[in-house]
Amino acid sequence: MKLVFTKSNLNKAVGIVMKAVPTRTTMNILECILIDATTNEIKFTGNDMELGIETIVEGEIIEKGKVAIDAKLFSEIVRKLPDNDITLTTDSNNNALITCEKSKFNIAGKSGDDFSYLPAIIKDKMITLSQFQLKEVINQTIFSIAINDNNKMMTGELFEVNEGTLKVVGLDGHRIAIRNIKLEGRADDVRVVIPGKTLQEISKILNADAESFVNIYFTNNHVLFEFDQTHVVSRLIEGDYFKISQMLSNDYETKVSINKKEFLDSIDRANLLIREGDKKPIIINILNGLLQVNVNSAIGALNEDIDIDKEGKDIMIGFNPKFLMDALRVIDDENVTIYLVNHKSPCFIRDKEENYIYLILPVNFTA
Amino acid sequence: MKLVFTKSNLNKAVGIVMKAVPTRTTMNILECILIDATTNEIKFTGNDMELGIETIVEGEIIEKGKVAIDAKLFSEIVRKLPDNDITLTTDSNNNALITCEKSKFNIAGKSGDDFSYLPAIIKDKMITLSQFQLKEVINQTIFSIAINDNNKMMTGELFEVNEGTLKVVGLDGHRIAIRNIKLEGRADDVRVVIPGKTLQEISKILNADAESFVNIYFTNNHVLFEFDQTHVVSRLIEGDYFKISQMLSNDYETKVSINKKEFLDSIDRANLLIREGDKKPIIINILNGLLQVNVNSAIGALNEDIDIDKEGKDIMIGFNPKFLMDALRVIDDENVTIYLVNHKSPCFIRDKEENYIYLILPVNFTA
Repeated sequence: MKLVFTKSNLNKAVGIVMKAVPTRTTMNILECILIDATTNEIKFTGNDMELGIETIVEGEIIEKGKVAIDAKLFSEIVRKLPDNDITLTTDSNNNALITCEKSKFNIAGKSGDDFSYLPAIIKDKMITLSQFQLKEVINQTIFSIAINDNNKMMTGELFEVNEGTLKVVGLDGHRIAIRNIKLEGRADDVRVVIPGKTLQEISKILNADAESFVNIYFTNNHVLFEFDQTHVVSRLIEGDYFKISQMLSNDYETKVSINKKEFLDSIDRANLLIREGDKKPIIINILNGLLQVNVNSAIGALNEDIDIDKEGKDIMIGFNPKFLMDALRVIDDENVTIYLVNHKSPCFIRDKEENYIYLILPVNFTA
Repeated sequence: MKLVFTKSNLNKAVGIVMKAVPTRTTMNILECILIDATTNEIKFTGNDMELGIETIVEGEIIEKGKVAIDAKLFSEIVRKLPDNDITLTTDSNNNALITCEKSKFNIAGKSGDDFSYLPAIIKDKMITLSQFQLKEVINQTIFSIAINDNNKMMTGELFEVNEGTLKVVGLDGHRIAIRNIKLEGRADDVRVVIPGKTLQEISKILNADAESFVNIYFTNNHVLFEFDQTHVVSRLIEGDYFKISQMLSNDYETKVSINKKEFLDSIDRANLLIREGDKKPIIINILNGLLQVNVNSAIGALNEDIDIDKEGKDIMIGFNPKFLMDALRVIDDENVTIYLVNHKSPCFIRDKEENYIYLILPVNFTA
């Protein structure tokens, strides 16, 4: 095989498929990327068996062939080569020669035949989003999923399409993040749970362009994201997702409108007095026209006042400050509205149109 | 005590004295900074007993006093407060109240009497450098000192002033970095060894301004750096430094002039094939008009050619790539000249005026 790429094309393509290459594994071949130029196009693939990424790379095929190459080493070599044409040649023993200007790297490759291709996906149900929208909606919800997989379902996100609206949901037992997006163009009804890791990796390779699109196809077991020259295929998490609607409520006893930045900055300061692992909450005291943020810990005490608009009862309620900050950070509105019932019931941060709903459970406190 | 600062003045001053606050210690008071407003100025001090930093802070003294406050917590609080006036008040029990706009922090301070002041330094011998020069000369040599202190002397840098020239030397047994700076203004002869840690911390708080100056005073046991509103005092490393002149030589069998960037980039690539901890050298083969960089390791092989000007014999010699890269990175010249004798003798990278001399010992290799 003999291929010629520009450095920038090669560098970009390796960066994309690397996102599906596991860092440590017992199967050496999975730490490789497959370079396949057996047809008239050059295709790179990374695949950790849960998540697979495939991208077409611009380049010249001087001699057809394929090879699997250690992903990390290859990406480092490409990154450090001069900004010029890079030639990749392999012999029948899968030895790879990478040349650029006066630089000649020899590294051992592996047979491309040992590499697992991505599963074929039947393009039945689909929706279309802009790359910007998909990247945004992932970042606006992914922090709410559970990190450890005691409950596998909590490590994924629900993608539910209903009457042309996409609902994305992440939850971890203490909080729920929900975003609703009105879809344009084709939007088939679906209800699937996509692994959080897939979404995290895909958000890194999406651009922030509102004019380039992602087609997302769903089967019973897999999801396929198609954009630019890239295909991302991931297994779905199987089983029934939580019944979200039962957890939501529009009843409230107290409604507060507050400047988002002031509230976020205040909680950020309060958080300084709470040690990691310490279950100490911050205490929010809502009075007429005034929200007080209070902490009293072994480190020190903080008291802050923020002007608010309030309807309904006064209330004092404790929260894990991290949960409030995570939600507030991804809301773009200047002012947010918070709905509360009592100090034991979840609070909701949501906008009128329900483009976003963030539910956060309170924490017990001793006043 | 009651003091009022602007956030930016306070933030800057805390950042400076923090550099002398140890992160972990058995003596709680050392993790504090001393805020002393017993006179008509406000002085902050950090002191780990080896290195002490003192800075005068602009601010209003409403009530005199002093207190020691946990450095890390105080700096985080200051950093996260709004960009406005910050008031620090303490009571007779050293409880500190920090207020800014509607934010009120209460934290426990300690008695300022328990804090160790910096030793008084007799201003006898001194030299003057610009902040830029001192920052530069530290960065251009500090990488050559030893990290672990099996040999305490190697963890410091020689500062030697002789006939108006400052020589700064760092060495670790495998390499030597030397910089010579022609001093302007007063320059008393001295020969002292300053701890590497002191120099590293001081380089972080120096600005890169060629027009602001540092006065450096030397006693037998201490060095004092005076610049802006700041004093840095450090113990010296006691004992005789190595006899550098015996290690240097102007004899050579091969002299090579090479483009610095090409050489550095090439070694950087070669380094990809060398695992950390692996003692594998890169092999430099110098022929007429051509320098070859070669590596052959378990990871792969690299061969590169670089055009050079050469005088004298051909030579093949092995090096630890990191040592070459460290030296080349801090040389500003477009072309560097390398002097070699044989594959067992040190090579020298130096300019004609000997503003810099980098000595690097070769590594044995099997061709």
